[in-house]
Amino acid sequence: MTGPHEVKLDLERGDRIGLGEAVLAEPKSVAQLTTILERTTVAGRPILLTRLTAEQLAALAPEWRARLDHDPVSRTAFLGSVAEPSGAARVAVVSAGTSDEPVAAEAARTLAFAGVPAICIGDVGVAGLWRILERVDELRALDVVIVAAGMDGALPTVVAGLVPGLVIAVPTSVGYGVAQHGRAALAANLASCAPGLVVVNVDNGYGAACAALRALRPPDTR
Amino acid sequence: MTGPHEVKLDLERGDRIGLGEAVLAEPKSVAQLTTILERTTVAGRPILLTRLTAEQLAALAPEWRARLDHDPVSRTAFLGSVAEPSGAARVAVVSAGTSDEPVAAEAARTLAFAGVPAICIGDVGVAGLWRILERVDELRALDVVIVAAGMDGALPTVVAGLVPGLVIAVPTSVGYGVAQHGRAALAANLASCAPGLVVVNVDNGYGAACAALRALRPPDTR
Amino acid sequence: MTGPHEVKLDLERGDRIGLGEAVLAEPKSVAQLTTILERTTVAGRPILLTRLTAEQLAALAPEWRARLDHDPVSRTAFLGSVAEPSGAARVAVVSAGTSDEPVAAEAARTLAFAGVPAICIGDVGVAGLWRILERVDELRALDVVIVAAGMDGALPTVVAGLVPGLVIAVPTSVGYGVAQHGRAALAANLASCAPGLVVVNVDNGYGAACAALRALRPPDTR
Amino acid sequence: MTGPHEVKLDLERGDRIGLGEAVLAEPKSVAQLTTILERTTVAGRPILLTRLTAEQLAALAPEWRARLDHDPVSRTAFLGSVAEPSGAARVAVVSAGTSDEPVAAEAARTLAFAGVPAICIGDVGVAGLWRILERVDELRALDVVIVAAGMDGALPTVVAGLVPGLVIAVPTSVGYGVAQHGRAALAANLASCAPGLVVVNVDNGYGAACAALRALRPPDTR
Amino acid sequence: MTGPHEVKLDLERGDRIGLGEAVLAEPKSVAQLTTILERTTVAGRPILLTRLTAEQLAALAPEWRARLDHDPVSRTAFLGSVAEPSGAARVAVVSAGTSDEPVAAEAARTLAFAGVPAICIGDVGVAGLWRILERVDELRALDVVIVAAGMDGALPTVVAGLVPGLVIAVPTSVGYGVAQHGRAALAANLASCAPGLVVVNVDNGYGAACAALRALRPPDTR
Amino acid sequence: MTGPHEVKLDLERGDRIGLGEAVLAEPKSVAQLTTILERTTVAGRPILLTRLTAEQLAALAPEWRARLDHDPVSRTAFLGSVAEPSGAARVAVVSAGTSDEPVAAEAARTLAFAGVPAICIGDVGVAGLWRILERVDELRALDVVIVAAGMDGALPTVVAGLVPGLVIAVPTSVGYGVAQHGRAALAANLASCAPGLVVVNVDNGYGAACAALRALRPPDTR
Amino acid sequence: MTGPHEVKLDLERGDRIGLGEAVLAEPKSVAQLTTILERTTVAGRPILLTRLTAEQLAALAPEWRARLDHDPVSRTAFLGSVAEPSGAARVAVVSAGTSDEPVAAEAARTLAFAGVPAICIGDVGVAGLWRILERVDELRALDVVIVAAGMDGALPTVVAGLVPGLVIAVPTSVGYGVAQHGRAALAANLASCAPGLVVVNVDNGYGAACAALRALRPPDTR
Amino acid sequence: MTGPHEVKLDLERGDRIGLGEAVLAEPKSVAQLTTILERTTVAGRPILLTRLTAEQLAALAPEWRARLDHDPVSRTAFLGSVAEPSGAARVAVVSAGTSDEPVAAEAARTLAFAGVPAICIGDVGVAGLWRILERVDELRALDVVIVAAGMDGALPTVVAGLVPGLVIAVPTSVGYGVAQHGRAALAANLASCAPGLVVVNVDNGYGAACAALRALRPPDTR
Repeated sequence: MTGPHEVKLDLERGDRIGLGEAVLAEPKSVAQLTTILERTTVAGRPILLTRLTAEQLAALAPEWRARLDHDPVSRTAFLGSVAEPSGAARVAVVSAGTSDEPVAAEAARTLAFAGVPAICIGDVGVAGLWRILERVDELRALDVVIVAAGMDGALPTVVAGLVPGLVIAVPTSVGYGVAQHGRAALAANLASCAPGLVVVNVDNGYGAACAALRALRPPDTR
Repeated sequence: MTGPHEVKLDLERGDRIGLGEAVLAEPKSVAQLTTILERTTVAGRPILLTRLTAEQLAALAPEWRARLDHDPVSRTAFLGSVAEPSGAARVAVVSAGTSDEPVAAEAARTLAFAGVPAICIGDVGVAGLWRILERVDELRALDVVIVAAGMDGALPTVVAGLVPGLVIAVPTSVGYGVAQHGRAALAANLASCAPGLVVVNVDNGYGAACAALRALRPPDTR
Repeated sequence: MTGPHEVKLDLERGDRIGLGEAVLAEPKSVAQLTTILERTTVAGRPILLTRLTAEQLAALAPEWRARLDHDPVSRTAFLGSVAEPSGAARVAVVSAGTSDEPVAAEAARTLAFAGVPAICIGDVGVAGLWRILERVDELRALDVVIVAAGMDGALPTVVAGLVPGLVIAVPTSVGYGVAQHGRAALAANLASCAPGLVVVNVDNGYGAACAALRALRPPDTR
Repeated sequence: MTGPHEVKLDLERGDRIGLGEAVLAEPKSVAQLTTILERTTVAGRPILLTRLTAEQLAALAPEWRARLDHDPVSRTAFLGSVAEPSGAARVAVVSAGTSDEPVAAEAARTLAFAGVPAICIGDVGVAGLWRILERVDELRALDVVIVAAGMDGALPTVVAGLVPGLVIAVPTSVGYGVAQHGRAALAANLASCAPGLVVVNVDNGYGAACAALRALRPPDTR
Repeated sequence: MTGPHEVKLDLERGDRIGLGEAVLAEPKSVAQLTTILERTTVAGRPILLTRLTAEQLAALAPEWRARLDHDPVSRTAFLGSVAEPSGAARVAVVSAGTSDEPVAAEAARTLAFAGVPAICIGDVGVAGLWRILERVDELRALDVVIVAAGMDGALPTVVAGLVPGLVIAVPTSVGYGVAQHGRAALAANLASCAPGLVVVNVDNGYGAACAALRALRPPDTR
Repeated sequence: MTGPHEVKLDLERGDRIGLGEAVLAEPKSVAQLTTILERTTVAGRPILLTRLTAEQLAALAPEWRARLDHDPVSRTAFLGSVAEPSGAARVAVVSAGTSDEPVAAEAARTLAFAGVPAICIGDVGVAGLWRILERVDELRALDVVIVAAGMDGALPTVVAGLVPGLVIAVPTSVGYGVAQHGRAALAANLASCAPGLVVVNVDNGYGAACAALRALRPPDTR
Repeated sequence: MTGPHEVKLDLERGDRIGLGEAVLAEPKSVAQLTTILERTTVAGRPILLTRLTAEQLAALAPEWRARLDHDPVSRTAFLGSVAEPSGAARVAVVSAGTSDEPVAAEAARTLAFAGVPAICIGDVGVAGLWRILERVDELRALDVVIVAAGMDGALPTVVAGLVPGLVIAVPTSVGYGVAQHGRAALAANLASCAPGLVVVNVDNGYGAACAALRALRPPDTR
Repeated sequence: MTGPHEVKLDLERGDRIGLGEAVLAEPKSVAQLTTILERTTVAGRPILLTRLTAEQLAALAPEWRARLDHDPVSRTAFLGSVAEPSGAARVAVVSAGTSDEPVAAEAARTLAFAGVPAICIGDVGVAGLWRILERVDELRALDVVIVAAGMDGALPTVVAGLVPGLVIAVPTSVGYGVAQHGRAALAANLASCAPGLVVVNVDNGYGAACAALRALRPPDTR
């Protein structure tokens, strides 16, 4: 009764706000995903799928699977022609523990989809403070530092106290008990004692990367 | 027994992360505030006081009151020599309703303290959508747009869907019932359907401005 | 010991409050559902099943399955004779994203069960504001607009600021992290800055449609 | 620095969505309120102030106080020419306990500001069920029933099970402990077992009345 | 290393507080359950298992399964000799909807385990108020009424306003969205406007029955 | 506009559910309280006021103040003829700390209003376990034990593990931080490991006493 | 009716668990406090009052005020003979910001009441990480480090990653918005990535000091 | 694209804070776990894996499985040479119910990994108070008592009122409804009326043991 799936892609988004088309795959049906892939192919534009589950990937038609550039750690996939990142990195993606890696990888892949190179630094949680301190000089030279951390979410505050660039905290759902699926880290990041730390939703590596792209946007595209 | 108030100002913060010294006045005693003002004067550096209550201001010694550049709407005060903002504005501070004005003003004053000019646009909540739509072209030309909104927090999402620059949402504590002192707006901003919207704590106009300063930092200071 | 399932259908509900019999299927056992189908058949009245899972449908006896008018997207089923919707639509069901479609479809199917035609408009979330703006004139002519949106729940507020009819927000559980299974959207809808927006429970497309039916009830049936 | 108070009245709201201008007074400064009163006077339109505190009223200039039609129970005030309600009542405002009276009164005054007559029924909480049962026939004849109740919020559900019209629940902040400033009643109303009950924010009598006005809107104004 | 399962049954509980031994089975391993069954058999006392899952039942040794008096709806099992309930019922177990039946059945089975007869009344939720009203005279003659209801939890309040005996509310986890696994009903029950309503944990039919047994305890056992 | 205060006393409540008329004074205006006192005087029935603030008491007309039997610790007042409690106590009111005394006193006064004698035992919190253990024999002989405790709410569980009668927990708002105005104690009481503990709202000494009266009701009044 | 204040001091607590008598003054009436002071004087034991408000202090009889050793920052008072702290410090009390000072002072005063010397280090929050790093060697030599921090609560985690002794986190209520009166810091401390960090209630400097005393207890007193 | 798993073990942690290397296995991939096992083997250090699921264990290469000392109840595994615990026990691990056993076992295994012997006492919840009372003398002689309890979390408070050593509460996720996965027990432990009780995250037996190791650390290692 509700007819064919209504999918209204916002293909002018790139022109309007400078970000390519992207789709949160997880809550969508395979039929909806297929419609989306068809439309973007017809429109001749690349698209980024985030949170594509293994089950969704397996259920797509083989021809679509073959055309996707899929990364299992970040659960992202590119469709269409994406330029290789080039130039010196102006962004870093830092994560506190190995369990935070998928979220950091989602951010890094989103930057790569936009052709922006990034430095990745993992496993530098504050319980072993020396690990982040030995990378500070490198981070101080960058425009944007994305920091993914779960549990107590202490790392973004420590980084924001050490570097002058824009620091974007991505609380992750890593942890248990009061960590409450990332809410403890989220609250800690928002209540940070370091000035100017900004925050995105729990596990939203994609959003952090989009914010970085907004901040990095070269003057000539405005 | 606990001795004289221990106050350890972080006067090198400016060198380290490019932001001047600032103090959240509200939870501090007048004795603590006085010590802070004395130390910064001795150090020859300007300082920004935020959330300075009328009672605190009145309780300060008259000579300190006389030397403060105080703004009652934003509840901020400058001590020391602060340069006039100059150059074309690259930042806007937008607020949804008249009740959000103090938070927006805190952001604008923090930018002014750093010598950064800002465009202020008030009373453009989404219930009367035409109000924000007629300012979009102006906002699209800027690097950073700070958006303060309470209640449902819908304005930052609408703005982030319309402009390419960095959009920083400041949820405010305006509202009642489920607005829960800003928590509804905060959640809405973090869960935004607009890609790349970043968020600071409820009513944290100061933090939003610091994030803008991090993003605007000219390359030569790095 | 607890005997045969006690099922007391409220078959006079239609006479009392003008709404047909409906059952929330999901928490019920197949034995309970079967008893309900038998009783309504005996009573000669149609019934609407909502949130009927694929597992429940498969576990029903084939003769019941054959007699159900089942819609997989909305997870609803009609049993019994249901009149085709007729007349000009006085209601619209609007949804923000493709993931909100099942909730919107539940509302639309509930209206159809009552013989009320509805306009369906999907994928018009506020991150691409032009999508809803181009439908405003159409919506302004209607009595009731049901708006289903998850994540930040911004769409119902925007619609309620643009149209004069009754606007019923249905927050959906679409989203992750602070979206908290629809609670962010719910809070945003209740705290809306648009006057007169009313709200139903998360994902309650059925309830929104019932409210529309209450509002639309023709004077001669009173 | 922040200049004169920016107040952008949405004076076309009446034309756009059929509701007059109204202002939530409580969070506004007296200067802001005065600006608002001046602007609406100049525009020649009536305005409704809600949640006007006794302190705010006392602080307004005497000439403004004299021109306001103020009601202390509902904390509302009208400025400008407001027509007397006329015609048969199509709306009732029902409240559970005497402590819920201010919220019910806010709804009734909002309806009066729009020229819509309403029946008021107080002190009919479900702990003494006979009180509401003896008014059911009267309520069944109406288009809209607004029900204000705090504590357990049971009354709106009971009413919605008995009458066919649109039932709008207004949870109130009456209660203590787990009543949590209205959150228990709010949750109960949203989770109601009565189909089609709609809900507004805690204590939002104004919003409930606006929803009633949207539902009652005569066809010729569309 | 942690050795054999330490299980310290409180077999004197019956003497101390008048309630037989009972065990919440769900969080226990099959090894722990087996140890418990062995110990109580040796001690020659009956035991009540609550929340025994189908998986646990299937995993028990066949000889244990054969000796258990198991009821699938309430997920309870008796081991050992249990007297048939006798005498006139002084307790009723009332439930609002068919989905609340398992919780009501747990209460009824706990009473049966103690030899106490109970009247069971199902499917009498307040959305169809006539259903409970026609049973009020019967309930007014009893000492204790246990009322299980999920969603808005309105039924216990309505019952407590109509009968003079002890009314024990058991909020159930039936519902979705803001019903939040029974928390809306729980809050409504605790915030009830009916005086003297007492409450147990969500879905705790066992606890409600134990409270009834405490209240019913004949004087000669004291 | 909203007319004289509508106050609909439920004077038949005593006949219906065996509890006298009582009013939660705190949220009511002095005008409302005066109307209530007048009506009950006319009806010739006693009334219990709970949570009567010192400000409310002072604002009542002197003739009313003179006629009230007021107790400042429990903040209760009786109006009208109340029989002295007589007979052996069948109820105890136990409290954990001196700060819980007002809540316990509200329960004791409610029992006294109904002519039911009670044993009061204070300052027996579990941090000094010997204090409650030396009173256990006394408590084991009673029908009902009301236990008021804030902070961790451990006392009701300990008591319910030691005595066979009905144990009613009244969590109190004593405590700070995570005690959250009684919510920690409330949750602990509901999640109690002692079987059959029942619970009322935070600080609801009145409700606990009403539940005791329901449980104690002699058979001949039924 | 409720008779003289029942106050049952636990004067054997010192013998039982090695901690002197202490009383949380804030929720107690002046009459209760006076009774407590009288009893401890009669018993010849010292007592520690915590959270004694200025209003309570002023309301005590002058002779009691004169005998109290009162500290306004920590809001504590000693009554009776208290030995001077002596020996090398084995405990440190560290605080993140000047606003956390009262909580740290409560811990330090509690230690002083027990005759235990402590090192106090203030204003070393992680936003200026050099401040704590320059004190690490000193802290590494101690048995217990108490760390009081509000806002994001990052400091206890950083300290626990750097020192081998027992680290006790005291989240403080400093902060606003999502800091939620200390709940963000509390959650962060409990979810800490540093192993073995233990936590007490928000603002509970007294409890942290008691835990330190338990850990420091010399073997000969056991 | 995200390259080989970045795993930065903190192998100097033992030297820095006296605790061996440990890894929370549950959120890690098998590839990450394998890398960790390889690195620690190369470094010649033992490692403790906690929360190792049966699925993870089964997925490890057989040679790794063969080398792990795995305990299924506590879900822990040791790799490398671990000394047998020796000497008199100075720590006890106490648990309230059989369902709390896995958490207590995690604590005991962590102590064993560090060579520290511990007394284990299970099934001594406060509903049968005699069970803990008969072990008090034994517990009073120890330095540290770890107490694991879910549901109402009353046991740690009772223990802390009876023994002089450091008492560490580990709330467990045992329970349902308002027990909310351990949050009720956690809040009760933090709000405890027993002075000096310290708390770790829900189910964090590992953290409690680490805190005990910090407190027990012999002076000569400092």
